[in-house]
Amino acid sequence: MTTDSSAKVIDGKAVAKQIRDEITAEVSRMRESIGVIPGLAVILVGDRKDSATYVRNKKKACESVGINSLEANLPEDSTEEEVLNYISGYNDDPSVHGILVQLPLPSHMNEQNILNAVRIEKDVDGFHPLNIGRLAMRGRDPLFVPCTPKGCIELLHRYDVSIKGKRAVVIGRSNIVGMPAREDATVSVVHSRTSNPEEVTRQADIIIAAVGQPNMVRENWIKPGAVIIDVGINPVEDPNSTRGYKLVGDVCYEEAIKVASAVTPVPGGVGPMTIAMLLQNTLISAKRVHNFE
Amino acid sequence: MTTDSSAKVIDGKAVAKQIRDEITAEVSRMRESIGVIPGLAVILVGDRKDSATYVRNKKKACESVGINSLEANLPEDSTEEEVLNYISGYNDDPSVHGILVQLPLPSHMNEQNILNAVRIEKDVDGFHPLNIGRLAMRGRDPLFVPCTPKGCIELLHRYDVSIKGKRAVVIGRSNIVGMPAREDATVSVVHSRTSNPEEVTRQADIIIAAVGQPNMVRENWIKPGAVIIDVGINPVEDPNSTRGYKLVGDVCYEEAIKVASAVTPVPGGVGPMTIAMLLQNTLISAKRVHNFE
Repeated sequence: MTTDSSAKVIDGKAVAKQIRDEITAEVSRMRESIGVIPGLAVILVGDRKDSATYVRNKKKACESVGINSLEANLPEDSTEEEVLNYISGYNDDPSVHGILVQLPLPSHMNEQNILNAVRIEKDVDGFHPLNIGRLAMRGRDPLFVPCTPKGCIELLHRYDVSIKGKRAVVIGRSNIVGMPAREDATVSVVHSRTSNPEEVTRQADIIIAAVGQPNMVRENWIKPGAVIIDVGINPVEDPNSTRGYKLVGDVCYEEAIKVASAVTPVPGGVGPMTIAMLLQNTLISAKRVHNFE
Repeated sequence: MTTDSSAKVIDGKAVAKQIRDEITAEVSRMRESIGVIPGLAVILVGDRKDSATYVRNKKKACESVGINSLEANLPEDSTEEEVLNYISGYNDDPSVHGILVQLPLPSHMNEQNILNAVRIEKDVDGFHPLNIGRLAMRGRDPLFVPCTPKGCIELLHRYDVSIKGKRAVVIGRSNIVGMPAREDATVSVVHSRTSNPEEVTRQADIIIAAVGQPNMVRENWIKPGAVIIDVGINPVEDPNSTRGYKLVGDVCYEEAIKVASAVTPVPGGVGPMTIAMLLQNTLISAKRVHNFE
């Protein structure tokens, strides 16, 4: 009989499924009550394979909950103006409640110009600086919470992890920071210039890793009993895989599972939640514009 | 002979004077080169004595560096629309490069509506959520950095306090957080829900206190050698003062001076810097609109 303690696995896939079911019910209630179907438009420029996969997954997710999905596929050598024209069309289209520009864009385009062109009321990604600003400010509310931080917090909620007053560390300087702060955690941000990232991370009750470095967070970075949300999705070589690589997080899962109280796996943790939150934001947008509660 | 170590006093008044001198020179160079004088418009609603004092000080500061100051004094019972009309006028006035609405506004007005009406190109306070958002985001730059955080960081720079890689704590959830993060500090935010504020604060090399609680930060909150920037300006009763009160910071100065390596006094620390930064933002705005370098 072993007493080897092992962390709970936070099943993002299962929670995301549950949320998609809730969205499905709401979308159908909305359609039946006022005849409106939420619509998400995705703009993909170029032919990056990974981007195409992401877009396909988002489209499938829309279909699974009854959200209309529109797609614009533009060639790699499109001009910025052509992309802006599509955005402008979707901005004006009342059947579109959310607009998503798949990143990265080809290098000859100005990402900021293009993202800023999306009407803030349709910026379901929540990346508009005005949204980020409102998220950061006390007493202001963003129109949309960015999908990834929203997914992280939702996972904590659904697993009954209390956040208020807890110490949270966000590793990597992403737009995730605002969310745990809004939930009254004491938040520290660790980044590449932090001189003692292990030490700071070890002080946290909740670790949110979003740095894009495979297996960076090791056992000695983790306070026993901490809860870990791993946002990283990093491909690493794997000769045993038919694809030649596998996906790992920013946290060394095998070590984390021994010392943390709960850990999200990669894949199957934050990833599915991010897509579910995109659907939720699209639904929120459609409800808002039609004043449907 | 005592060996009692005592902290360096960070003389905000002296630094602010130096910055105002630099601004004076730039304003005069601009006037002589292109005939443009930067202008700051201040809107004061109602007759709060403290607000009137602040506005008067800002006006005097403008005069001292050669910046034009315009002022609108509206009665307490003005409507929101009347205030918005003034803002609109200043928005359109090319001689106005900065607009400042003195807070707090009378309670019958919607502060957000009014602040949002200020054109972002003239929002020298830097409080527009779009500015705050850009401040929080990597790779984006705000049009104006809010005056108080800018003043805090400027003090650290002028006293050669290195920030990169250092642990900084911001006490109180203000918009100050973004600045030390941009300077590559590892930032933690302590607030009223933090369960162990002393402990978290004691881990910091740089403490920025902006909570509005007189003398809250005591000796045992401070790591020996830490640098303290005290943003708080709190009136407390003082029978020895003819006014019946004196101003103290959020940090217990008498205790801090014994353990920290450097401390800003209150008054005479961050306060004068905030006004100097307002002048600087107004100058930046005028230079930007006239493409003057």
